Amino acid sequence: MSASLEDIVSLCKRRGFIYQGSEIYGGLAGTYDYGPLGTQLKRNIVAAWLKFFVDGWDDMYQIDSAILMNQKVWQASGHVDTFHDPLVECSNCHSRYRQDEIKDDKCPNCGKEHTFGEPRQFNMMFKTNVGPVDDENNVTYLRPETAQGMFTNYRNILDSFSPDLPFGIAQVGKSFRNEISPRDFIFRVRELEIAEFEYFIKESDWEKYFEKWRKDMHGWFEKIGLPKDKIHEIEVPDNDRAHYSKRTIDFEFDYPFGKKEIAGLAYRTDFDLKNHQEKSGKDMSYRPKDGSAPFIPHVIEPTFGVDRHVLAVLANAYSEDEQGGEKRVFLKLPAELAPVKVAVFPLLKNKPELVDKAKEVYKMLKKEVQGTVMWDDNGNIGKRYRRQDEIGTPYCVTIDFQTLENDTVTVRHRDSTQQERKAIRDLWTGLV
Amino acid sequence: MSASLEDIVSLCKRRGFIYQGSEIYGGLAGTYDYGPLGTQLKRNIVAAWLKFFVDGWDDMYQIDSAILMNQKVWQASGHVDTFHDPLVECSNCHSRYRQDEIKDDKCPNCGKEHTFGEPRQFNMMFKTNVGPVDDENNVTYLRPETAQGMFTNYRNILDSFSPDLPFGIAQVGKSFRNEISPRDFIFRVRELEIAEFEYFIKESDWEKYFEKWRKDMHGWFEKIGLPKDKIHEIEVPDNDRAHYSKRTIDFEFDYPFGKKEIAGLAYRTDFDLKNHQEKSGKDMSYRPKDGSAPFIPHVIEPTFGVDRHVLAVLANAYSEDEQGGEKRVFLKLPAELAPVKVAVFPLLKNKPELVDKAKEVYKMLKKEVQGTVMWDDNGNIGKRYRRQDEIGTPYCVTIDFQTLENDTVTVRHRDSTQQERKAIRDLWTGLV
Repeated sequence: MSASLEDIVSLCKRRGFIYQGSEIYGGLAGTYDYGPLGTQLKRNIVAAWLKFFVDGWDDMYQIDSAILMNQKVWQASGHVDTFHDPLVECSNCHSRYRQDEIKDDKCPNCGKEHTFGEPRQFNMMFKTNVGPVDDENNVTYLRPETAQGMFTNYRNILDSFSPDLPFGIAQVGKSFRNEISPRDFIFRVRELEIAEFEYFIKESDWEKYFEKWRKDMHGWFEKIGLPKDKIHEIEVPDNDRAHYSKRTIDFEFDYPFGKKEIAGLAYRTDFDLKNHQEKSGKDMSYRPKDGSAPFIPHVIEPTFGVDRHVLAVLANAYSEDEQGGEKRVFLKLPAELAPVKVAVFPLLKNKPELVDKAKEVYKMLKKEVQGTVMWDDNGNIGKRYRRQDEIGTPYCVTIDFQTLENDTVTVRHRDSTQQERKAIRDLWTGLV
Repeated sequence: MSASLEDIVSLCKRRGFIYQGSEIYGGLAGTYDYGPLGTQLKRNIVAAWLKFFVDGWDDMYQIDSAILMNQKVWQASGHVDTFHDPLVECSNCHSRYRQDEIKDDKCPNCGKEHTFGEPRQFNMMFKTNVGPVDDENNVTYLRPETAQGMFTNYRNILDSFSPDLPFGIAQVGKSFRNEISPRDFIFRVRELEIAEFEYFIKESDWEKYFEKWRKDMHGWFEKIGLPKDKIHEIEVPDNDRAHYSKRTIDFEFDYPFGKKEIAGLAYRTDFDLKNHQEKSGKDMSYRPKDGSAPFIPHVIEPTFGVDRHVLAVLANAYSEDEQGGEKRVFLKLPAELAPVKVAVFPLLKNKPELVDKAKEVYKMLKKEVQGTVMWDDNGNIGKRYRRQDEIGTPYCVTIDFQTLENDTVTVRHRDSTQQERKAIRDLWTGLV
């Protein structure tokens, strides 16, 4: 069975994964706050991404560039002129919509028909003023993508590191898009996290590296447990591609609300570096070490929506079965991503000898386990299992009277609900 | 000897720690981009902070809340009314300054005297509009502190986790302050990263926990290698404290430009929760599990400027000495924080048997070492040592002809420049 979006939203709020942003004030549309378990899950996904695409490689340079950039960046990148959505307004009630949301020319708010005129272009960048003078020279925008941070630092990377071509510049960070209609939980939001890299190549190599990264992206989805049959490649046709791209593949995931983009792979050509060279007057060419003629590199860009990954991982993990005649909800998260790796239970909370022994095991695991270890002594063991199942904890360890006799504990596995008896001294061996 | 700020800025740019933001367009004042080594150093500092204050503890809840929040948050917090700096304008040339920058009533820009009138209050929050309608209802601000994310999620944490008091909510993230005059490199900037937590307590316990965190903050500085004699506690007097605080200690560090704040410890009382209760109408009281009367908790807040930590760590590490009659610059970084943990050199790059063996050692270390391993085969060994010294790499490993005979390598230590011969098989044992 597949989870509904409502199931996931409700679990996220109840158990502390994700809350509505500014909730006590009725929210702020398109913003979400990650609670402790969501923060941990997101941290684990980002750490896995960095490990997979960045940290292990000699040709990858990770940067962390500012969200606020000089407005000229967004002029050169084309975002000031073209990062638009078509906006229509109802002449009766003045509600505003993105044009493609109006299906039958009837206003979704007031219900009147034929109230929408020609759309106007609405720029999706958030505007602000920098410094104590409010004029056009001081306008800038919250970055709508992290990519421009890589392009504007390309020369710095050349100067500091003299990399051989091809090489990549990577970044994980916040971006902002003033969506007309944010929706679908953390899928279409106004504040989002992106993990992406720009891979600089010779023009003649573009098909080769496009193909390389296409394959590696599938490897990544597999690595985080998203099944092949839920990932779909969509070749984006000419008229739908972003202004900078010569070829784009959207990677779509089977979300509860349909197939939607989770990641993308774009051949950005030399569009960005060329425009920055023109606008800034700075030389953007790469000088090959063999003395051959300098040229402006072309770029392949694999890009990943971090929040969309969190949602895909949660939707994919959400499971139900029956245990002893009762419905059970559990998150089948890969152990590497699970926010809590193991929970420790004393069988009874009012037996000091059990509690003391459990505390000992708990402390030992805290040292041994890379990740969170949780303590729970509240309610019967069955209830505690259910609580851990719901947040995707792969293992529960119970300390009982037998433990006091022979230093063994019960390890219970989340997916199979199977239990095994293990010696404390090699409790963690073979797990995770 | 102490490093000058210029020494540090120059090293940061040259070696890829930190670059001016939007540099190819002449910058955007008060913004900086972290290059690969700076990103790694910052990641290591944040990881150490989370390990020290958050991950190991059962009573700490880490969240990641949105930068964009409902404007009512900033009304309740007092920031709309009071997060001001006094701004003065020259009546001759219209330059604007923070009042305390004008020392002798002469304009620093045009040189005219007595051109400044009464200051006006300049709000330091960046303003923007959310959604497709530009009116006062849609105004919001880039958060000037992360703390309000913790206060607005306090109820969510109670609901999802039922924590015992005291407990803490922690966060690491970007904040934005529209400083009139950003300065001193990454010290006073418009976009900054903060690591902080709100620790919720009974009012009667405030002095006890203030004292506890004061001590732990010193423990933290020691942990990251900042010497006791460079850290100074400043008791902030009544009239200088933020509007929400009843007691504040600033922790100052001996930066190259003087003693300046690196962290702070504030007793925020129940100011924030009370105001949010009033403004939102939501009950902010904590219900003790023993059934005693509910109350609004008070708050102790330890707060840490992440960029200021990066700068302090760099300034403290910057060292010079003489080696063989030549000046040497090296960063005496704690191994835990060093962006590169170990570098691997084949003695000669044109001897395939040395290069192959070195590649083998390099691959082995990449698996074993938590952190970055760098390869360098460029220039003589002395030059390679200098390059690694300058970025603070604790160990350099050279593969030479003796290696081919007996599987040993030379390990060279950064600070002492001492070399030792070690067997490859236990190369990493005892290091870091």
